[in-house]
Amino acid sequence: LSAAYESLDYDTCVNSAWLDEERTMGYKYVVKKDVARWLVVLLTAVLTALPVAAGSGIPQVKCYLNGVKVPRVVRIKTLVSKALGVIMSVLGGLAVGKEGPMIHSGAVIAAGVSQGKTTSFKHDFGFFEYFREDHEKRDFVSAGAAAGVAAAFGAPVGGVLFSLEEGASFWNQGLTWRVFFGAMMSTFTLNLVLSAYNGFPGKLNYNGLLNFGKFDDLTYEIWEFIPFLLMGVMGGLLGALYNHINLKLTAFRMRYIQKPWQKIIEAAVVAFVTAVMFCGIGEENAAAAIWFQTPERSVRSLFHDTSDSYHWSTIGVFFVCYFFLACWTYGLGIPAGLFIPTLLCGAAWGRLVGMLLCLFFPDQKWVDEGKYALVGAGAMLGGVVRMTLSLTVILMECVGNITFGLPLMIVLMVAKWVGDFFNEGIYDIHIQMQGVPIMAWDAPPLSNNIYASEVMNRPVVTLKSVERVGHIVNILKANTYNGFPVVDSIPTSENVCYFKSFGTLRGVILRSQLTVLLKHKIFNENAEVWQNSKVDIHLFRISYPRYFTLDEVDLNPEDMNCTVDLRPFYNPSPYSVVTCTALPRIFNLFRALGLRHLIVVNDNNEVVGMVTRKDLVKYR
Amino acid sequence: LSAAYESLDYDTCVNSAWLDEERTMGYKYVVKKDVARWLVVLLTAVLTALPVAAGSGIPQVKCYLNGVKVPRVVRIKTLVSKALGVIMSVLGGLAVGKEGPMIHSGAVIAAGVSQGKTTSFKHDFGFFEYFREDHEKRDFVSAGAAAGVAAAFGAPVGGVLFSLEEGASFWNQGLTWRVFFGAMMSTFTLNLVLSAYNGFPGKLNYNGLLNFGKFDDLTYEIWEFIPFLLMGVMGGLLGALYNHINLKLTAFRMRYIQKPWQKIIEAAVVAFVTAVMFCGIGEENAAAAIWFQTPERSVRSLFHDTSDSYHWSTIGVFFVCYFFLACWTYGLGIPAGLFIPTLLCGAAWGRLVGMLLCLFFPDQKWVDEGKYALVGAGAMLGGVVRMTLSLTVILMECVGNITFGLPLMIVLMVAKWVGDFFNEGIYDIHIQMQGVPIMAWDAPPLSNNIYASEVMNRPVVTLKSVERVGHIVNILKANTYNGFPVVDSIPTSENVCYFKSFGTLRGVILRSQLTVLLKHKIFNENAEVWQNSKVDIHLFRISYPRYFTLDEVDLNPEDMNCTVDLRPFYNPSPYSVVTCTALPRIFNLFRALGLRHLIVVNDNNEVVGMVTRKDLVKYR
Ligand SMILES: Nc1ncnc2c1ncn2[C@@H]1O[C@H](COP(=O)(O)OP(=O)(O)OP(=O)(O)O)[C@@H](O)[C@H]1O
Ligand SMILES: Nc1ncnc2c1ncn2[C@@H]1O[C@H](COP(=O)(O)OP(=O)(O)OP(=O)(O)O)[C@@H](O)[C@H]1O
Ligand SMILES: [Mg+2]
Ligand SMILES: [Mg+2]
Repeated sequence: LSAAYESLDYDTCVNSAWLDEERTMGYKYVVKKDVARWLVVLLTAVLTALPVAAGSGIPQVKCYLNGVKVPRVVRIKTLVSKALGVIMSVLGGLAVGKEGPMIHSGAVIAAGVSQGKTTSFKHDFGFFEYFREDHEKRDFVSAGAAAGVAAAFGAPVGGVLFSLEEGASFWNQGLTWRVFFGAMMSTFTLNLVLSAYNGFPGKLNYNGLLNFGKFDDLTYEIWEFIPFLLMGVMGGLLGALYNHINLKLTAFRMRYIQKPWQKIIEAAVVAFVTAVMFCGIGEENAAAAIWFQTPERSVRSLFHDTSDSYHWSTIGVFFVCYFFLACWTYGLGIPAGLFIPTLLCGAAWGRLVGMLLCLFFPDQKWVDEGKYALVGAGAMLGGVVRMTLSLTVILMECVGNITFGLPLMIVLMVAKWVGDFFNEGIYDIHIQMQGVPIMAWDAPPLSNNIYASEVMNRPVVTLKSVERVGHIVNILKANTYNGFPVVDSIPTSENVCYFKSFGTLRGVILRSQLTVLLKHKIFNENAEVWQNSKVDIHLFRISYPRYFTLDEVDLNPEDMNCTVDLRPFYNPSPYSVVTCTALPRIFNLFRALGLRHLIVVNDNNEVVGMVTRKDLVKYR
Repeated sequence: LSAAYESLDYDTCVNSAWLDEERTMGYKYVVKKDVARWLVVLLTAVLTALPVAAGSGIPQVKCYLNGVKVPRVVRIKTLVSKALGVIMSVLGGLAVGKEGPMIHSGAVIAAGVSQGKTTSFKHDFGFFEYFREDHEKRDFVSAGAAAGVAAAFGAPVGGVLFSLEEGASFWNQGLTWRVFFGAMMSTFTLNLVLSAYNGFPGKLNYNGLLNFGKFDDLTYEIWEFIPFLLMGVMGGLLGALYNHINLKLTAFRMRYIQKPWQKIIEAAVVAFVTAVMFCGIGEENAAAAIWFQTPERSVRSLFHDTSDSYHWSTIGVFFVCYFFLACWTYGLGIPAGLFIPTLLCGAAWGRLVGMLLCLFFPDQKWVDEGKYALVGAGAMLGGVVRMTLSLTVILMECVGNITFGLPLMIVLMVAKWVGDFFNEGIYDIHIQMQGVPIMAWDAPPLSNNIYASEVMNRPVVTLKSVERVGHIVNILKANTYNGFPVVDSIPTSENVCYFKSFGTLRGVILRSQLTVLLKHKIFNENAEVWQNSKVDIHLFRISYPRYFTLDEVDLNPEDMNCTVDLRPFYNPSPYSVVTCTALPRIFNLFRALGLRHLIVVNDNNEVVGMVTRKDLVKYR
């Protein structure tokens, strides 16, 4: 596990500062906030649809929705710097796609719009201040990701399901609707813009940024499920191989290719190899259209060209080359999408299968090479990425055909199962190699006899309700923990039964809150100074999400002897569990409520331990 | 609130009996259970697709997924008895549909298959015993409901989303896949059966039970959003009117029409009026096809017939009559679906709008009366039912057109917003009139200053870890509570600070567990008898879900003085909150974890109050 990742805090801290705000603002505030939510989603959707592209980003968005703070993931700087990269790699003809970046850009835009300020440009517009909380931001980011998928593939429902598959445990109905609304509006905007761009203003002909052409009538016979199933297995195997090679490559890269100049050289080598291979082999093949088009166009050709457009050897060679190139390119240090290259590989071998069937069953109406190319594309994507529900729907929406959903879904599921037998999906592999503490969906099986007392961390660093500044500073310096239980009184050690108690639990306070208090010198001794200027929740919000570090807080020696009253600021009702709680219950709490800290107490509500995400990810 | 409804218990009780089982069964058991889960979903899907119909049931399924035990909702007897009813009412020409019942039947079948026993036929097949828990059953019921929607409309994705919109807070990825799998298989089975039935065995031409015909090319121009929006508003208004009338009617019925014979008479009157109206008015109209077909066919005609198939007056009269008939019929005491009648009403006025536009903009390519009929149908359904995401997708899948999703979605959202301004959706209205304690999605706004101490119920009835049988019996007789905190020792009343304490919390035990213990006489005094036969979790499962009542437990006077050791049986880590916890946090816990009892403790972990679903529904 890498120490670079911190958790997000999806839990609201209902302290008295927060309550004060709610009490004074009243119902109008609630309405305003709700209207603003829809507005943000609308803005995000519209902005996402304006084709911006930036860094693959799907794994990062996945981590973010899971509750891990990935440094800089939702910063505008990230977006811009990667946009250039993607444009260059697509132009340069590398085996990359531009759809992953779109999803990321949706997330970035959502985060930007909802916070009403940018860190990159150091500007605070001051609006939407009430959305400066992790869980509000997370909701917008999931809407943004959905809008991104919707715009990239013209698949609004698929977009919603994508967000859902990644962040499902924090779902509710109001949010679903906003996400759906965003996805729809983003498709709509993109459609409008593209139609105008292509000379049909006011018409709505261009559904997604990527267009694989529509399949109008895809019928299939029941026994065709046999080739479909086999293709699913094939997709799973190829996907597992792809992931395995990529895993080894990534491990190699992490060890040997670390310096920027090394990365640039590798990228140049890939570009060179790509160019040589494509021109060299491409030239030898007469009908070599697939070698020279954009990958997106090639997919379209493989799906829709009439049979006997290609010779089987062309496609075969193309598949082998492209498979390895795509595998090499992903994770190269350049921003790159994965969907299109994978779809293209799959379409190639799918079409080969179609041709084979043509050979064995000539003159049969149902033999349609394009159909098998589609199934192959689905199988391959399923084998590499391993999402099922959202992928099915994305593909369905992408090719504009609903009746073919069942075969696609079955192929995707089989591919997933077969692939899962060997390794994990490509995104998960990359996430794990980076040491991100990502939470699984469930506790591992048979973990009911693992108790909170084994999971928890001891000793616990706690604070008292009224604490000396010097002590707080020492504690903050001495460790990197981000949350501290606030306790009543450290009991004498005579009634230690099983676990040492650290005092009766009163609440929990975050490091970020403490630094704000120190920075603004909210001390009891100078209460008359700050009590006039009304210390409220605003103080904590303006510095979100990058609070002060301890170095930015300058305290003179006499401050050190002041005291701070934490009572108005800590969260007085943190979630806690007793020592005999089983692991799956803790997992459930974390997933369902998006927790950052869970306090373990003994039977008298005395703090005995601390559980965070990092303690839980050890169990898988 | 009605007292007839009890909560379900989605929380696993990880007591030592349960742990024993897990420990002895090991990993093979986990795998077996998982395989069985997929099997159950498959069986459910296949069985659901075989067109069985039973009672509207959507509100009931909704309640069940929300966590309310609706008496007899998932019993086979219910299914059979209502199947007859629906067949008769459809045959009789009443303004009812058969799709709601299908959804219900999916749920019933799922419950039946997963439990491996039927209460109606008093037979216990003994398999799938490990699924006899509320939360396992709930998962299967949501899969069943999805399979039902999928089969009824040929809309697998819509089915998944339907389940999601109703039970979303208990969602996870593994479950999503099973639900999707079930929905797909059920569409597939139905397709297979229908195709064979219609003379094309092995082909897959019939997607859903209901078939509204496919719209191949539905294009729209951007300014058409203006009529669409207006139609959304119209749908919202009409829907609100429909719901209002139905509400008044239902209230009237609840007061005056209670006896079975009265209900039968009302049904007969409706049938008579329907017949007279249809024949009377139908005969006067030359092109009166819509009067005489099945509602489903009429919808299809309105969607697809060429323009000038109908005179506007035919449709106008038809709409008015059908609107009131449908409104009268729903909730009549006969099992009845709502979708088709509502769609039909909507299609009628939608087509009228289309004709009007035709009049103003003659000879325009985009004026397509069928398209406006579709929009009207969507708007009406949205206004009455108020589901958005799943309805959009169901309609999209139903008419086989993806590009038209955006307008449909916007119309549905507008209809929902406008309708919500006046009253709630029809299902919610019926649920509330029956006094079902259904939990809202969120706590009401501005409720952060309502604390657990105000929500909770006092005094709390508690038990000690080792308790006298006589005392237990008295407690069970004296109240109807279903859960009892187990406490350590009743403290002396001297340290009462704010709230009276009822002892230190140790765990929670359910009434059902207590009755099983009493029934089987698991007393300390005859330990040698039952310790040989190994008291295990099995004992509690065989009587699930209908445990013994106190009358079925016969105890002789000397039993009364025995003692029961509750420690191996109670749940040692119940969820608890402190008195100063804000209402939204409690709401979150209940929704996200599917709780039945939440114990309120003071700062020393002493029980001071009890919160159940019924305490929470007061706040809305
Ligand atoms: N106040 C504390 N006292 C003792 N141990 C703690 C405390 N806070 C966290 N820990 C433990 O420290 C280890 C690392 O914690 P972790 O970094 O996840 O917590 P954090 O810094 O509070 O939150 P974040 O996930 O944002 O970094 C974990 O084992 C956790 O249980
Ligand atoms: N053991 C108990 N002691 C005191 N009050 C209780 C207890 N159990 C429930 N209550 C209260 O009784 C009221 C009705 O409870 P309710 O019927 O919801 O609980 P239940 O019977 O335990 O569960 P169910 O929802 O299954 O009926 C609520 O106000 C609840 O807080
Ligand atoms: Mg940390
Ligand atoms: Mg009760």
